[in-house]
Amino acid sequence: MKYYEYDTDDMIAALATPWGESAIAVIRTTGQGCIEALSAVFNGKKNLGKARPYSMNYGTLKDPGTGKKIDEVIIGIYKKPHSYTGQDMVEIFSHGSMAGITEILKMLHSVGFRDAKPGEFTLRAFLNGKMDLTRAEAVNEIIKSKSTKAMDLALQRLSGTVFNRINHIKNLVAEILSEIEIQLDYAEDEADPEASLDKEKIEKAIALLKELSFTYRVGKIIQDGVSVVLAGKTNAGKSSLFNLFNKTERSIVSEYHGTTRDYIESFLLIGGIPVKLYDTAGLRNSDNPVEALGIKKSIEIIEKSDIILYLIDGSVGLDNDDISLMNSFDSKKLIKIWNKADIALEKSPDDFIDISALTGEGFEELETEIEKRIGTDKFEISDSVVIDSERQKNLIDEALMALSNSIVSIKENMPLDLIAVDIKEALDNLGEITGEVTSSDILELMFSNFCVGK
Amino acid sequence: MKYYEYDTDDMIAALATPWGESAIAVIRTTGQGCIEALSAVFNGKKNLGKARPYSMNYGTLKDPGTGKKIDEVIIGIYKKPHSYTGQDMVEIFSHGSMAGITEILKMLHSVGFRDAKPGEFTLRAFLNGKMDLTRAEAVNEIIKSKSTKAMDLALQRLSGTVFNRINHIKNLVAEILSEIEIQLDYAEDEADPEASLDKEKIEKAIALLKELSFTYRVGKIIQDGVSVVLAGKTNAGKSSLFNLFNKTERSIVSEYHGTTRDYIESFLLIGGIPVKLYDTAGLRNSDNPVEALGIKKSIEIIEKSDIILYLIDGSVGLDNDDISLMNSFDSKKLIKIWNKADIALEKSPDDFIDISALTGEGFEELETEIEKRIGTDKFEISDSVVIDSERQKNLIDEALMALSNSIVSIKENMPLDLIAVDIKEALDNLGEITGEVTSSDILELMFSNFCVGK
Repeated sequence: MKYYEYDTDDMIAALATPWGESAIAVIRTTGQGCIEALSAVFNGKKNLGKARPYSMNYGTLKDPGTGKKIDEVIIGIYKKPHSYTGQDMVEIFSHGSMAGITEILKMLHSVGFRDAKPGEFTLRAFLNGKMDLTRAEAVNEIIKSKSTKAMDLALQRLSGTVFNRINHIKNLVAEILSEIEIQLDYAEDEADPEASLDKEKIEKAIALLKELSFTYRVGKIIQDGVSVVLAGKTNAGKSSLFNLFNKTERSIVSEYHGTTRDYIESFLLIGGIPVKLYDTAGLRNSDNPVEALGIKKSIEIIEKSDIILYLIDGSVGLDNDDISLMNSFDSKKLIKIWNKADIALEKSPDDFIDISALTGEGFEELETEIEKRIGTDKFEISDSVVIDSERQKNLIDEALMALSNSIVSIKENMPLDLIAVDIKEALDNLGEITGEVTSSDILELMFSNFCVGK
Repeated sequence: MKYYEYDTDDMIAALATPWGESAIAVIRTTGQGCIEALSAVFNGKKNLGKARPYSMNYGTLKDPGTGKKIDEVIIGIYKKPHSYTGQDMVEIFSHGSMAGITEILKMLHSVGFRDAKPGEFTLRAFLNGKMDLTRAEAVNEIIKSKSTKAMDLALQRLSGTVFNRINHIKNLVAEILSEIEIQLDYAEDEADPEASLDKEKIEKAIALLKELSFTYRVGKIIQDGVSVVLAGKTNAGKSSLFNLFNKTERSIVSEYHGTTRDYIESFLLIGGIPVKLYDTAGLRNSDNPVEALGIKKSIEIIEKSDIILYLIDGSVGLDNDDISLMNSFDSKKLIKIWNKADIALEKSPDDFIDISALTGEGFEELETEIEKRIGTDKFEISDSVVIDSERQKNLIDEALMALSNSIVSIKENMPLDLIAVDIKEALDNLGEITGEVTSSDILELMFSNFCVGK
């Protein structure tokens, strides 16, 4: 079988763990003949071809040409259709050595594997009927989860909550359509849509779709989080506060360079919501063009952020630059911070939060204020179905539009066969969400967002 | 059993793959009761307590308190003593989600696991007699391998080549010692060491140890590689050349910040040898204190590097600053590069390599020159035993010293029991290499260099 330019049952391989030194690396393979291909380059107690499904087999991988040992590994065997992809699968658990991983992938190429495209394992799972598209997307959403809440919701989707909800609505819409078709087939005269159609059923479908569409915004904040930026003049203590956040919350820090100055971002959780925290260059007028560029970049980041933490060096106090800068920001986004409060000469103005980034004093109060601004309390959605996929959201909105059109047409007493076109369109949109109706272009776009190896 | 502050059979857990988003993450656990503990938080077809050794079991992990689903996972089971550590082991193959990994580790804590220390799995393998210390160190050396050559040599060590070589020498030394002890026990009169001792055996042991000690330097270069730094004035094209290296060779780039300017390093392979390539700030006199600091840092990196690539902007030509800078560097380390040769106005001096970092012209010649400076050709050591551990090297040198002392003592006709002390010391040194004789301090130091999860 072919899926855009590639076969869907040839042998593919990918590193499924992050690239880097670690105790263990996992290289995933699947496709017709993968167990036999690995068997030919494996020395172990047992021939892999005879290994049980779901068994782990210790041995060494060798170079098929020279016979040279490449690594000591554990090989996991899955036999079709009882595997993630629905095809034979082999997972290689190797040392997490960058030289070793490179060698193994090179060796796999030499025995007929090709590099897997992003999401290609899950694509095969979908094509082989192991999961519908809402579950496939949930796999990716689980991996991208940066908070427990996001993870919980994605796990629910993986277990089929979105699929079931969409199916329920689809059944409603299908019933409406079949009622119309019966009337079209048997009605001798032109029927009166207003009288003969179950408008309530359409309205129920519309209400359910609206509810689901609305959850997307919530899902997005829980999954992608909000951005918080540290702003203020040089020496206000931005970097100290940045470090305090990263010490307090488990975080991953990545550093970005422009051609000139840098900014640093880190990911952390505040009140269970993922936060992207930025530290920027100090704000001040500068004649130095290099610095001026850095400051321009800072302003850009500040303006794009959801929350601005503006720091004042309390030991120096406010000046007109600070005041005019703070006035230039959206006040709903702005949290004013009086840093170095422990050594401040003057008392802070009332609308400031006193902290000491050095001693940690006042930090909890600041976190509470950030949570309030994010609106963490609004996200108590324990068991409900929440969508996180833009693709799903757009299709739901299209189905909504089509059903709303049908209601208008019914009211305007349009012919039944025209109304049927709208209903049919809604049905197709819903079918596309789960993947019943779909095109390879859409699949390609969807899976290209996935991790390699998944 | 206790090993410094910790038990050596309690339940430990660690993320064994790099921290980050990916298709799969592996969380490794071992210790008395780990299968039962995991079984209690696992929902699957089979109870993990009844799962076969070396089997993979699909199911979900749940929170033991709330019963909430934490992740869908595959669980790998190993039963003692047939595991890496020699104890029961459970490997959790989960989604590579940072939220999910965090939750699983938290859950493991709540059911009695503690975080594993670096190398603690391998330490247990050693303590349970699964491997000697040279093999244990080889595990770490495999993971740290940045080139195929380094990996090959480490795999040889893992298969016991160093262990066997040391054992062979140790047997020689033990024979010498037992001969002395027999003479000490039975000789009625003070024997003549020169006449009665097999000096040749000692000299043979010395020769073998010297050979092994010498391989350390080679092992080090193959494992750790050499450092190459890009130097030159602003606009000489250092960053373009840096990018060209990284495009041509597979590389990992990491970026470092001082308080002011940055430098960037990347890892790549040139002629099979790992190279740490640095890009630094442009060299020029600066009144700007921020810039001056950056340049100071650059000079530091240049002075520590093994090879200096000094770039001239060929379209501008040499000036006195360039000449005095190049003269200040060690000429054995210096490779002079005439960049932008494609648009250069003047011809390059004879001792320069012409390149264009933009078009790639001359790049191969540059790589060949770098290889020559590294001395890649000296490293054809296919099947020999090469050590890479400083610990092993130091112990070998101590044993060498003790044996050399014994030779002197024999020549000086010192009493046999004094000579026996030297020989005994050499034997202890050799025993420490493989771990026959060892202290928990040394183990602690050694394993603290390991990855967590290994």
